[in-house]
Amino acid sequence: MDALYDVAAIGNAIVDVIAPADETFLTREALAKGSMTLIDQPRAETLYAAMAPGVEMSGGSAGNTIAGLASFGGRAAFVGKVAADALGDIYAHDMRAMGAHFGTTPLNGGAATGRCLINVTPDGERTMNTFLGAAGELTADDVDVVLIEASKTVYLEGYLFDPMEARRAFAKAAALAHGAGRKIALTLSDAFVVERHREALLGFIETQVDVLFANEVEICSLMQTDDFGQAAIAVQDKVRIAALTRGAKGSVVIYPGGVQAVPADAVDKVVDTTGAGDQYAAGFLLGLAQDRPLDVCARLGAVAAAEVIGHYGPRPNVSLRDLAASRGL
Amino acid sequence: MDALYDVAAIGNAIVDVIAPADETFLTREALAKGSMTLIDQPRAETLYAAMAPGVEMSGGSAGNTIAGLASFGGRAAFVGKVAADALGDIYAHDMRAMGAHFGTTPLNGGAATGRCLINVTPDGERTMNTFLGAAGELTADDVDVVLIEASKTVYLEGYLFDPMEARRAFAKAAALAHGAGRKIALTLSDAFVVERHREALLGFIETQVDVLFANEVEICSLMQTDDFGQAAIAVQDKVRIAALTRGAKGSVVIYPGGVQAVPADAVDKVVDTTGAGDQYAAGFLLGLAQDRPLDVCARLGAVAAAEVIGHYGPRPNVSLRDLAASRGL
Repeated sequence: MDALYDVAAIGNAIVDVIAPADETFLTREALAKGSMTLIDQPRAETLYAAMAPGVEMSGGSAGNTIAGLASFGGRAAFVGKVAADALGDIYAHDMRAMGAHFGTTPLNGGAATGRCLINVTPDGERTMNTFLGAAGELTADDVDVVLIEASKTVYLEGYLFDPMEARRAFAKAAALAHGAGRKIALTLSDAFVVERHREALLGFIETQVDVLFANEVEICSLMQTDDFGQAAIAVQDKVRIAALTRGAKGSVVIYPGGVQAVPADAVDKVVDTTGAGDQYAAGFLLGLAQDRPLDVCARLGAVAAAEVIGHYGPRPNVSLRDLAASRGL
Repeated sequence: MDALYDVAAIGNAIVDVIAPADETFLTREALAKGSMTLIDQPRAETLYAAMAPGVEMSGGSAGNTIAGLASFGGRAAFVGKVAADALGDIYAHDMRAMGAHFGTTPLNGGAATGRCLINVTPDGERTMNTFLGAAGELTADDVDVVLIEASKTVYLEGYLFDPMEARRAFAKAAALAHGAGRKIALTLSDAFVVERHREALLGFIETQVDVLFANEVEICSLMQTDDFGQAAIAVQDKVRIAALTRGAKGSVVIYPGGVQAVPADAVDKVVDTTGAGDQYAAGFLLGLAQDRPLDVCARLGAVAAAEVIGHYGPRPNVSLRDLAASRGL
């Protein structure tokens, strides 16, 4: 069957709440600058009450990737759990308004739609505290058989390795995808996720994952080494393709029998690095869907990552398709 | 009794939903560029479904003025109706996080928190469609006697002249304020509001209003003339102080026995004029609370208006107190 979608992503459906903060605020609230921490509802309420007036927008790692993919003109679908509330309506609207398919049934009568409280210090660093809410209630029942079988690649957000029910959803998606001759991609999302679930993650990667996305810290944590080169060599035995991002140093693609380094795209001014990894994955996955060579996939990722770090917010402000075309891609 | 607040504002508690749009979209949805239209819930849902992905932030005309007043370091309070829902929580949070008092009981089990769907075309113009929701359910019971009597000026948003219940809330606030020796200020908000309620507005202004805010179009509509000069002369018989804004031409203050023109502050680049009138009112009301001369009140208004039109969004991005100090005010 021809694929209906280039990518179906399974991730945390999260609305970002972004507010300015000073260093004193981080100290007073005992927040480690630049970190992502999971918090419960009472903590979310007290932290929010202490924050400055904010701006709200749809976020979530895999959701940001789907936004990038749609901006490239790719055919995208998203699976993630919002609640039947105002923020859930906003999340669903934004997903569909960018042209992505979003059909996950909202949670009714349970937790509220998840949110990520983001405090931005004057140096541009973002300190994130995430209340998963409904997003943490994703189950295998939310994995739509027809959707998975109709998507060239199914992209999984590593953050969802925390809740056991979501991990079962990953297993179901992987079985369905491979049964239909599709590919499974996974992003490690966060070094702390890797720390918490290294064995389970490695097992899942070795048996189910075709394409692995990770940054330097994450891949070093997974392979338990401080040396990126050693981690890159070690991961070759674990997965067919690994796309490893290194910030300004570009990315390295590992594939059967080879390694390819691709430079980062030039950025006039780094304004906000949030979403760089998400957008790199968007470009890379688009390239894979179009059967482009792996170095072109990595260059598409670099174009998307450079766009998003040049402005505030983790989703592209301009058409990534036009941007890639202007780069001759 | 000493006043606890410099200004208590009564207005529509509205969350803005801001999304980019092209001219074709305005045509297809039959939207008059730059206008503000009241819409019902079904229309709000279909229009929102057609809009691009957006960003959400607290708005509302008088709410924006309170944000400006707080940024000036003024003591501010807000009266307005949100629903007991996620957007209502966000609105209340933003109000309190800026240091303003906000104690209006949220609406429970009725309409959702109001929202303003704002489509921004590439020329920077904003086309607004407002679903009032809970904001339209404000009643006289929401007017807190102690709060009104403890505020130097009570500032009323003309948009609330539409619902009869809110108009009764205005009458109650005016009676309480004057009984306590306080002042009533009113902004006309919108020429269409004036068209709809000219007689009632004129009656209210003549008997209850101490300070009137209006732009050129609104004051001309109120006085039924095409000539701003004639409107400015005519309004002298109606109200003690009128602060009339004229965009780049600055403002004109009418007071017993005199007229004072004050130039606009220079702006490097006009990015988004939304909120200019709201911020002018913030500066002017702060000056009044500090018993500054009327031309200084107008200059404080000009500083605040210039700040907000230099960036997107109707609330100040920097401290208006610092900005005014840097202007020697």
